[in-house]
Amino acid sequence: MVYVEMRNPEENYPFDHWWVIATSEELGQGQLLPRKVLGMDVVLFRQDDGTAAALVDRCSHRGLPLSMGALEGNRITCGYHGFQFDPTGTLVAVPTQPNCPRKGSVRAFPVVDKAPYIWIWTGDPALANADDVPVYPWLREPGWAWATERIHVAANYMLLKENVLDLTHFPFAHKSTLGAIDSYANYSPPPVLGDDRVCYRNEFLNQPLSPVYNDDLGLGDRLTDRVDEGVSVSPAVHIAKVSIRIKEPRPGEKAEYAFMFHHMTTPETPRSHHYWWAMARDYAVNDKAAAYFKSIAHVAFAEDKVILEAIQKRNDEAGPGANLQEVSVVADRAGLMARRQLQALLDAEDRRRAGGTV
Amino acid sequence: MVYVEMRNPEENYPFDHWWVIATSEELGQGQLLPRKVLGMDVVLFRQDDGTAAALVDRCSHRGLPLSMGALEGNRITCGYHGFQFDPTGTLVAVPTQPNCPRKGSVRAFPVVDKAPYIWIWTGDPALANADDVPVYPWLREPGWAWATERIHVAANYMLLKENVLDLTHFPFAHKSTLGAIDSYANYSPPPVLGDDRVCYRNEFLNQPLSPVYNDDLGLGDRLTDRVDEGVSVSPAVHIAKVSIRIKEPRPGEKAEYAFMFHHMTTPETPRSHHYWWAMARDYAVNDKAAAYFKSIAHVAFAEDKVILEAIQKRNDEAGPGANLQEVSVVADRAGLMARRQLQALLDAEDRRRAGGTV
Amino acid sequence: MVYVEMRNPEENYPFDHWWVIATSEELGQGQLLPRKVLGMDVVLFRQDDGTAAALVDRCSHRGLPLSMGALEGNRITCGYHGFQFDPTGTLVAVPTQPNCPRKGSVRAFPVVDKAPYIWIWTGDPALANADDVPVYPWLREPGWAWATERIHVAANYMLLKENVLDLTHFPFAHKSTLGAIDSYANYSPPPVLGDDRVCYRNEFLNQPLSPVYNDDLGLGDRLTDRVDEGVSVSPAVHIAKVSIRIKEPRPGEKAEYAFMFHHMTTPETPRSHHYWWAMARDYAVNDKAAAYFKSIAHVAFAEDKVILEAIQKRNDEAGPGANLQEVSVVADRAGLMARRQLQALLDAEDRRRAGGTV
Repeated sequence: MVYVEMRNPEENYPFDHWWVIATSEELGQGQLLPRKVLGMDVVLFRQDDGTAAALVDRCSHRGLPLSMGALEGNRITCGYHGFQFDPTGTLVAVPTQPNCPRKGSVRAFPVVDKAPYIWIWTGDPALANADDVPVYPWLREPGWAWATERIHVAANYMLLKENVLDLTHFPFAHKSTLGAIDSYANYSPPPVLGDDRVCYRNEFLNQPLSPVYNDDLGLGDRLTDRVDEGVSVSPAVHIAKVSIRIKEPRPGEKAEYAFMFHHMTTPETPRSHHYWWAMARDYAVNDKAAAYFKSIAHVAFAEDKVILEAIQKRNDEAGPGANLQEVSVVADRAGLMARRQLQALLDAEDRRRAGGTV
Repeated sequence: MVYVEMRNPEENYPFDHWWVIATSEELGQGQLLPRKVLGMDVVLFRQDDGTAAALVDRCSHRGLPLSMGALEGNRITCGYHGFQFDPTGTLVAVPTQPNCPRKGSVRAFPVVDKAPYIWIWTGDPALANADDVPVYPWLREPGWAWATERIHVAANYMLLKENVLDLTHFPFAHKSTLGAIDSYANYSPPPVLGDDRVCYRNEFLNQPLSPVYNDDLGLGDRLTDRVDEGVSVSPAVHIAKVSIRIKEPRPGEKAEYAFMFHHMTTPETPRSHHYWWAMARDYAVNDKAAAYFKSIAHVAFAEDKVILEAIQKRNDEAGPGANLQEVSVVADRAGLMARRQLQALLDAEDRRRAGGTV
Repeated sequence: MVYVEMRNPEENYPFDHWWVIATSEELGQGQLLPRKVLGMDVVLFRQDDGTAAALVDRCSHRGLPLSMGALEGNRITCGYHGFQFDPTGTLVAVPTQPNCPRKGSVRAFPVVDKAPYIWIWTGDPALANADDVPVYPWLREPGWAWATERIHVAANYMLLKENVLDLTHFPFAHKSTLGAIDSYANYSPPPVLGDDRVCYRNEFLNQPLSPVYNDDLGLGDRLTDRVDEGVSVSPAVHIAKVSIRIKEPRPGEKAEYAFMFHHMTTPETPRSHHYWWAMARDYAVNDKAAAYFKSIAHVAFAEDKVILEAIQKRNDEAGPGANLQEVSVVADRAGLMARRQLQALLDAEDRRRAGGTV
């Protein structure tokens, strides 16, 4: 069964891929949660045993979104004529007749719930391997404080990925927030390639720690070495780590600390995406941490959202055929590599489909 | 004169047809009423003697909607340069010169006012026969209580016609209203063909009467035979009749009662339509009847509107080329027949035009 | 360097042309003013010495509107990564590296600030001659009272130009305002051609002066000869003059007065334009004049806006291929001539580009 047809040239995302579709927390028992990903309307729900399931959000009969129906046990009942579907998408009941037409089944998507995220495989189910879904200890295990939230961004997801691969925008886009803390603009960050992933690395050596990290660590003016590293793990995941080392630790004092950032991106359409940020730290693990993370995110990531949406809007107004000016500099190296890696992924997927191996 | 050019494939409605365009009541004397039907902007008004008239709602000079002008006697004066048109669409005055250009006339539509509706013929005027405009005694004559109202539905009109041809949606779409009253879902209604019209027929025999009909009839738990029949008379008209017969009438008691439903549909665009519902009954003919009909309609038909608009929205998002899944069951038989009958009407109209007989 | 590619058939405006883009007053020192003209996003600002400058409002790096950045001295700093541009559009600083890519410059537009308007040349800079930018004494010199304002009109600019070339719409479009004052509708204004410009001329001889002009002149019922003349100077400029002469002036009384109107039109897109009206008079030069001009404009020009936008909306709904009915009469002669003159301008521009002389 071929699930995906010829790629729309605007769809710059691989379908044979795991993507975050929701947080584990936001999908309650008994709920029908509609969400569009990669241009497809999906309805998410939990089975009786809590296992997450995902179907195309469109009844096979007359097309009503299934999310407008009712969930009873493991079955979705359509809100129009009562057709019932099980978690595999199989049409299991038509109220007006004893039998169900075979062609009445709807597409089901592989989903995996590994807290704090529910992941969906949007391509050929035969290629889906739940073991490939990543788990991040710092978002689950004791010893870490963390928070995550979704932001809807009306811009292609690659605009965000390139944004987080080049932090030299801090002093300008985040002038009064993140930008106030560091002289990122003086960096020409060399991408470091490891495991075919696109990275950047910025060092802030022998300096007082910037307030974002220092506020709850309380080092004052003491000198630290800080290394910021970011990795575009896949089109769906970017992880950044801030490693802090106290230059002259006091006797018995813990000398090394970590602050983790996630930028999880899931295309909604070619012109919009869902963006889950997450932050975690291994110090000051207290009740106030989540609120602190959100206070940073709500200001700084809103600044990015405004910028990316303005760029997308202008591109859209120019139209698909417009040959818009784009000049790149050294600081774009990681972003440009991410584009090339994405293109390689898309080409491989196109070849795989053309070869009939799907 | 050929009024209609090549059919836009989305325009699934016959032009050589009578359609409801307004209620007689809503078109007051002296009023210019704009309404779009079958993709055409029309301005309705009454002549001095009260006769309804309809013109294309666009001045032949520079294109201002005539409905933005003024009605003086039998003439519309355009609100831009004062060109005047009579009820035949003839340009009869240009303020700045003594003569009127011949090509300045605008299209006039045959209209017929047969209360409670004003009907418009949207095709070749030579084919319009006012005798074909139907009159419904139960919406005019003594012995009946009735009401009618327009609802705007942002969905193709055939979605509504199929809706009213398959009442097995009651228990799901109208769970707490109409659906609460009958076990429609247990029916696989056999369409009955009479006079080339698409019908359904549901029987509820030897049962207490459901509250919708019983509330003002007061039969309590007494047993009745009830037959629901619906007929798609044309693309513009669907009529349903509920026939009630008391199983064991008391001496001298009237044993038979009728409740009539109308579903009058007029395409506005390929993606929207005007929908006039009407209800009438030959019992409890009192002042409260109209309010009772509206109380039913405002809840139940709003439920249909939400469903049909959700389906249309998804279809639109998928785009015209999308090959959307649609599986049909036995209960769809009447609806599918209505589609075929419509297609035959459209094909005949296309042949007639191609043959130059228009 | 060729700045403009093949003309989009909807773009019925010459690019090699001076257009009003702002009033001198609205562009403050230190401000970044975004404005779309002829389909192009432009950012306006003043240099240190107050000279106006205009760049394409799109950073050459990643496409953020430059108007979302910051103006420091003579340079715009992009709000994303801090790229800096000087008033010639040259990229003069990239914060992360010492050198600037040559291809990073953005287009600069010739602009001229001749109060009360700032003008932009939207075509080939080599053809721009600042001496061609007009100056209107009655909007600058002592002895005149004047006012000007911008109105955004969601309609093609030629709809407004034709509007002001045919004042026979006054009695209908401005029934209770301008229309109340004169019997324009009785005129079939003969266009007078002078200097290849399209004109009209209406005479109101031996009559009391209409209130619009008389209110502050105080002639009461005394007889005057009044001549209204209008000239479409170019696609960007229409100037009208009302000349008033007292029939029997008293000894020592000034006998002649003038009231000037401007209708400055600048396309924003093919379906919208910026419209600056201006009014001036050489009598009753006092503090109340500007408020009086605005009181007329806010009512009367709003009536035109409603009409032109209704026409544009209907044309848009009909689609680009629609063959909409349009009949013309004698009163349209000036407007039709303006269309032909515009077409000649466009054809000349197209030929010039095709010939490679740009």
